[in-house]
Amino acid sequence: MAKTDYLLKTPKGTKDWADKDMIIRDKIFNTLSNLFKKHGGVTIDTPVFELKEILTGKYGEDSKLIYDLKDQGGEICSLRYDLTVPFARFVASNNISSIKRYHIAKVYRRDQPAMTKGRMREFYQCDFDIAGQYDLMIPDSEILNILIDGLKSLDIEFTVKLNHRKILDGIFEHCGVKEADVRKVSSAVDKLDKSPWEAVEKEMIEEKDQPKEVVDKIGEFVKQKGTIKETLEFLKSKDLENKNAVEGIEEMEVLSNYVEAFEIDKYLSFDLSLARGLDYYTGLIYEAITSASAPPKDVKAKKLKDDEDASAFVGVGSIAAGGRYDKLVGMFGSKSIPCVGISFGVERIFSIIKSKTNLNSVSPNHTDVYVMAFGGGEGWNGFLKERMSIINQLWKQGINAEFLYKNKANIRKQFEGAEKSSAKLAVILGKEEFPQGNVRIKRLGQGEENEGDLVKIEEFVEKVKQQLEEI
Amino acid sequence: MAKTDYLLKTPKGTKDWADKDMIIRDKIFNTLSNLFKKHGGVTIDTPVFELKEILTGKYGEDSKLIYDLKDQGGEICSLRYDLTVPFARFVASNNISSIKRYHIAKVYRRDQPAMTKGRMREFYQCDFDIAGQYDLMIPDSEILNILIDGLKSLDIEFTVKLNHRKILDGIFEHCGVKEADVRKVSSAVDKLDKSPWEAVEKEMIEEKDQPKEVVDKIGEFVKQKGTIKETLEFLKSKDLENKNAVEGIEEMEVLSNYVEAFEIDKYLSFDLSLARGLDYYTGLIYEAITSASAPPKDVKAKKLKDDEDASAFVGVGSIAAGGRYDKLVGMFGSKSIPCVGISFGVERIFSIIKSKTNLNSVSPNHTDVYVMAFGGGEGWNGFLKERMSIINQLWKQGINAEFLYKNKANIRKQFEGAEKSSAKLAVILGKEEFPQGNVRIKRLGQGEENEGDLVKIEEFVEKVKQQLEEI
Repeated sequence: MAKTDYLLKTPKGTKDWADKDMIIRDKIFNTLSNLFKKHGGVTIDTPVFELKEILTGKYGEDSKLIYDLKDQGGEICSLRYDLTVPFARFVASNNISSIKRYHIAKVYRRDQPAMTKGRMREFYQCDFDIAGQYDLMIPDSEILNILIDGLKSLDIEFTVKLNHRKILDGIFEHCGVKEADVRKVSSAVDKLDKSPWEAVEKEMIEEKDQPKEVVDKIGEFVKQKGTIKETLEFLKSKDLENKNAVEGIEEMEVLSNYVEAFEIDKYLSFDLSLARGLDYYTGLIYEAITSASAPPKDVKAKKLKDDEDASAFVGVGSIAAGGRYDKLVGMFGSKSIPCVGISFGVERIFSIIKSKTNLNSVSPNHTDVYVMAFGGGEGWNGFLKERMSIINQLWKQGINAEFLYKNKANIRKQFEGAEKSSAKLAVILGKEEFPQGNVRIKRLGQGEENEGDLVKIEEFVEKVKQQLEEI
Repeated sequence: MAKTDYLLKTPKGTKDWADKDMIIRDKIFNTLSNLFKKHGGVTIDTPVFELKEILTGKYGEDSKLIYDLKDQGGEICSLRYDLTVPFARFVASNNISSIKRYHIAKVYRRDQPAMTKGRMREFYQCDFDIAGQYDLMIPDSEILNILIDGLKSLDIEFTVKLNHRKILDGIFEHCGVKEADVRKVSSAVDKLDKSPWEAVEKEMIEEKDQPKEVVDKIGEFVKQKGTIKETLEFLKSKDLENKNAVEGIEEMEVLSNYVEAFEIDKYLSFDLSLARGLDYYTGLIYEAITSASAPPKDVKAKKLKDDEDASAFVGVGSIAAGGRYDKLVGMFGSKSIPCVGISFGVERIFSIIKSKTNLNSVSPNHTDVYVMAFGGGEGWNGFLKERMSIINQLWKQGINAEFLYKNKANIRKQFEGAEKSSAKLAVILGKEEFPQGNVRIKRLGQGEENEGDLVKIEEFVEKVKQQLEEI
């Protein structure tokens, strides 16, 4: 009996959230919001779409993935691609000199969806950013602290990879990469987490036109990873004279000190292959990866399509990422405000947590009490108005309660309703008992034999409260 | 030093939410979410855009206000115009036979913005809907209960206007309005809350081409308002034989019974002029209005532009609205699921509550403790790593804390930081005291003379917890 000639579905790459998933997701949001508040964060909410010009020139190659609104007269707008550029616009347009803000909201990318990898066209980001002119690496180390505290609170196993854009640029320069080629070489190197060196080497030579000797030199660097101290040792042994590299190394030494004070050094791997896709990073960059989010084994056999790796954010294994971007606010023509931030990828974290959750223990409802009427036979009117009056007394006391929307409610249907709502107690209006001024309070889910307690109507709300507290 | 040639702003009709406004808004969201949960509601989250076909043919004249996404290859999509049609699509596509769902999210209308009236192009709705085949008027009366409980919880003065589409249609038919003219006559009548009868009469005759005698007959009905019982008396005195009217009157009699049981009858006004703009309503309709949201006096003097009244939802005075829509789910080609719901208009409610709030008592931050170092002179290193270590101990115990991101932090700047964050306590690392194993805990905002308590480092976290509990 289909009356429509179109598919009844959500648009490609989007989904409905419902039922138990919402409870699990809200728990993640609450954990992260509380974490952000713990560090002095305030929250903001920006429009889902921005003037198109705001987004232009901020995302490099990925700009092609931006969703535009149709020109229906008036301004030309695009859906936000991330929460970072709208944040920078917010800081610039409100002339803010310092803020720690968090923002949990949806972003939009016209990417090839890969649901199994948690890559959607509409997906959530949970961002925390610190904007302001501060001393070197202090906010950066707090952001790392937040990243690590967050993933630990969510009970996720992870490692955080670190690198520094200045060091990376310095290395490429040192190895002889032309300035115009840095971004494309960088994006090849970034694939080392998923591909062996030989594949990346081949890509740099054949697709990115780099001379063999340049690529060999790059290889000596980007295979290096270890603790911050180890990778600093390695870099110093290379005697880099390049200004960028020297500055980056100095900054990493400062950072090394601070992560010790925060006792988070053991979670960090200083990995010279980490490059990150986005254009706007200028300093420290980082990415948290988890073994739990590695691709299923059969995926490895399949050839990865090129467009399946276009999303810098929700790549395989990456569950949170960020970095320092000191020039983004200044691009909006206002004074320059240095920023550093972290973005948690909710879809991926959600999948990990859901896979570990006993779904039987999760109820999407918050109902505590189900109000029922028991009766039948001649003269039985179903006690509808009486149930309404009784449930209204519960609602007035803030108690979560439901009843069956039937004039004469069948006993079985009422118990089914109570079970569907995961109600803990039934308040029962018996055909004989209720006219005598009593209702019955019965603990649900404990078998048929338990008849419950008969209590006076004047006292039932208090008794319900007591019993709910005891459960 | 502007580097951009475009205006640095949000798109027309949209705004950033930030600072204290976010705290006030979150409080509204929490009040309403808890209310919805109290009535057994579960929450869902649908995509911001839907396939355009899903929205087509659901909103009547208002369809011109729908935002479309640009055709960038692939599906043609539009931003959601309300949460009701996506809900119906959700119910249909997931083959749901019954659900009580709430949804708090943004919707989009290319309307003429009128910020002073709270009419935006991007704005929030808070919806609660009951879908399922139930006995007459039972869910409807619970929805009215929720509407009234919600506005009372938010401490807003209001009246709820009720009407019934079947009665309205029956009246128009009875008065001789042609079926094809019902919607346009209806929309003229709907203006009676803002315009005198003479203006509406003129519009019906001159713009909507209705004969004078038809309009006169309509006038006899639509000026009627009163309690449900009073308006039912009035209708019965008219001896309507029309099938629609008779059915509607019967339903209102049933409702009258139930709202008595819920003790909400005194908030209701059965007003035959209420028509509501949206096409999809089929039964009971309602709208809560507040005197607090009447237009400022100087607005009355200005001539209202036609397009300023295009938004059915956030009309002057209306802060929540809804009704029964039994045929919307069935339009998606699946089985028909009757629905009834309510939508709270957050922007308008927000304005009312904000105007009554003492903003000095609202802080956007949740910071409890500010960690400071006091010192100076020769050999003073600023205790940065020490502050990091101390604050880390607070964070690990879940305490909201901040510190100044400077190597050597000036005392005045630290107090300014603490004040900006509304911190309640300072934990102070003194140049002499700290090396001896002590920190100072000082209650903030109580004047300079209070030096605070000196406590051992091993004990400071516990002492901080104690003091925070006492505040």
